[in-house]
Amino acid sequence: MLSDLDEHMRKRKLQGIVVYGDTTLGNPDLTYVVGGNLARGGIFVKRLHHEPLLVTSNLDIGTARRLRRLRRIETSTEWGLEKLAAKYGRENTQQYLIKSILRSEGIDGKVSIHGRNDLASGVRLADELRKLGARIVGETSPTVLESARETKSAREIANIRDVGAKTAEIVEATLSSLQNMKRKRGHLYLEGTRATVGRVKKLISSKLAEQDLIAPEGTIFAIGPSGADPHNAGNPTDPIKEGRLVVFDIFPQAGSGYWFDLTRSFVIGRADLKAKRLFETVAEAQNASLDLLKDGVTGELAMLKACQVIEHGGYRTVREVFEGKTRSISSGFNHSLGHGVGLTIGERPYLSFLSKDPLKSGQVVTVEPGIYLPRYGGVRIEDTVVITARGTENLASVDKELELA
Amino acid sequence: MLSDLDEHMRKRKLQGIVVYGDTTLGNPDLTYVVGGNLARGGIFVKRLHHEPLLVTSNLDIGTARRLRRLRRIETSTEWGLEKLAAKYGRENTQQYLIKSILRSEGIDGKVSIHGRNDLASGVRLADELRKLGARIVGETSPTVLESARETKSAREIANIRDVGAKTAEIVEATLSSLQNMKRKRGHLYLEGTRATVGRVKKLISSKLAEQDLIAPEGTIFAIGPSGADPHNAGNPTDPIKEGRLVVFDIFPQAGSGYWFDLTRSFVIGRADLKAKRLFETVAEAQNASLDLLKDGVTGELAMLKACQVIEHGGYRTVREVFEGKTRSISSGFNHSLGHGVGLTIGERPYLSFLSKDPLKSGQVVTVEPGIYLPRYGGVRIEDTVVITARGTENLASVDKELELA
Repeated sequence: MLSDLDEHMRKRKLQGIVVYGDTTLGNPDLTYVVGGNLARGGIFVKRLHHEPLLVTSNLDIGTARRLRRLRRIETSTEWGLEKLAAKYGRENTQQYLIKSILRSEGIDGKVSIHGRNDLASGVRLADELRKLGARIVGETSPTVLESARETKSAREIANIRDVGAKTAEIVEATLSSLQNMKRKRGHLYLEGTRATVGRVKKLISSKLAEQDLIAPEGTIFAIGPSGADPHNAGNPTDPIKEGRLVVFDIFPQAGSGYWFDLTRSFVIGRADLKAKRLFETVAEAQNASLDLLKDGVTGELAMLKACQVIEHGGYRTVREVFEGKTRSISSGFNHSLGHGVGLTIGERPYLSFLSKDPLKSGQVVTVEPGIYLPRYGGVRIEDTVVITARGTENLASVDKELELA
Repeated sequence: MLSDLDEHMRKRKLQGIVVYGDTTLGNPDLTYVVGGNLARGGIFVKRLHHEPLLVTSNLDIGTARRLRRLRRIETSTEWGLEKLAAKYGRENTQQYLIKSILRSEGIDGKVSIHGRNDLASGVRLADELRKLGARIVGETSPTVLESARETKSAREIANIRDVGAKTAEIVEATLSSLQNMKRKRGHLYLEGTRATVGRVKKLISSKLAEQDLIAPEGTIFAIGPSGADPHNAGNPTDPIKEGRLVVFDIFPQAGSGYWFDLTRSFVIGRADLKAKRLFETVAEAQNASLDLLKDGVTGELAMLKACQVIEHGGYRTVREVFEGKTRSISSGFNHSLGHGVGLTIGERPYLSFLSKDPLKSGQVVTVEPGIYLPRYGGVRIEDTVVITARGTENLASVDKELELA
């Protein structure tokens, strides 16, 4: 949480941090520290155990104040931006501006600089700041901001829950549209012609638009064999047919910057025995790992549990790879159990064999086991949950049923 | 253009460049050099006057080959990623991986590193590469990649034109929806209730979805006084009324990564004389600057021309600020004439008083003069055009009419 920033800085022996960017768009660290969207971004500077300062453009100062996150907000004009530009040239203002803020805040120790920015300019900025005497240090992941962002505040959880409620509505409306489509000789029909993955995706896109959500990374709607590849977003020309497994994975983002992640797998009409066994095993693996997850448990343990259930069902898992028994598996559960969700769609904490840190209350993670059978199809069931002291709380509720009758 | 990369590197005395990222999403430099989208990104390394190399994940190698941009594509496994992780730890693989690629490519001179990435990790990467002997240098804007991206190839122009055609359809369909809405006592009605900016925006969002476009930065639909602020996206609760100026500015992005930018201003029903004068002046300013723009002309000159026409119409312009006559203007034409469009919605070249470089054939820019009258409204007319030897070519054609009868 943002309130832990001092603690994370202290652990890394940082006296100061700088987070900056031309815009908050696509810049989760900056969105996080300013508390929302600023079209022209700004420079955020925090000294250890001191109130942070945001320097932003004249145009964004009103918006920045309305976000009510920061108490100290000033304009770049007040900090002499135009004078610096006249004296040193426009391309050299940033290092002088940041240096004077650091000096004025009394920061002369180690400082890390953050934000998702053009690296060639960022490296130059670091070099120039060092020439001016600043002690700029780099960081390995997790950076101080990744650590802070890992645990969500009540306000952040409310934001994610809000995206979740809208996502659930979209998924339910899509399933109900599919269920109500006319069927003829195994094919589904939409406005008189055969329904395809492409047309269903447009339906989903317009539902996203109605809910004021965007899906910058697309949506997965994969039927039959294409669902056997967890990274296949679905082939637009594939017809929607009865009896075939569908993996529907949706990961939208709201205007607040927060994301959600939800997957349902189903068959329209009747499922065969193979699909039923896959579905039951994945559902059992998800339930078993959800039963286990709570504050203090490691991601590794939840991952292990999911693998055990899936192996017990007779399928292979990525555990074989981690134990060095094989280089890769050709079918089965071949990815990790989950990942954090917040201002990005994939962040700490992760639920994998490498996740040795105990999870903490307030962390928001996906729990998404899957089994994939090449040339047949796949099943993945995914919820986004918040870790609590006693277990998990599901942030969106959508039925899990294999057959859409 | 990408084919000018060697020339831009040579000018900056760079022996090599590295462009990397975990994904191409939100990373225009990486999208540009690999020729499209790679879910897990990669590391692109180019030595001056040599064929570049892309090192990507096993999962993305097929996609990378299908993009047909690069001849040399290899996997990180072939470059020993897993072995490096075992030897140095996962958080330290990148510098060793990049260093071995640089060594193998024979790059021991100046190298710049690019891509939109977390800066704290990027600064550390630069520091570690320097410890390993690499001569990493920073760059001021324009970086070597910004310079290359400034002029578009035929393929890029085709991509932008494609977004333009879809954008034009959306704008025309929106205008026609507005025109067909029932009107009663000055209000427009949508499905029996009063139309608002919020509802019209949802209409636009679903049209964007139908066209497979996204609008990550939103859409401006501002009516009356809110249109007087060029940065106001429109107040969702504002009713759509006859006789009021609307500024409709749409800037969507396609799956290809390319953007488009188009603005129309109009009045539903009859416009008053004030609106007519505003509209005619802005249209004249746009035509005058379009008539002037071609290969070899500076952005500054086009900006000056637009200001002259607007001043001749009796309005103030930002020229007064640039000439030091005043600190800011409270009404009139208060922004620059245009900006480049490509893999971002705002990039070089710019059409402003600071744009002293001659424009070149193949550059794609917006031409968007506007006049804003506080407490009344604004007019902005914007097209996205490509600079040619003889003039400009408009990349999307949408009528410019003040009154929607």
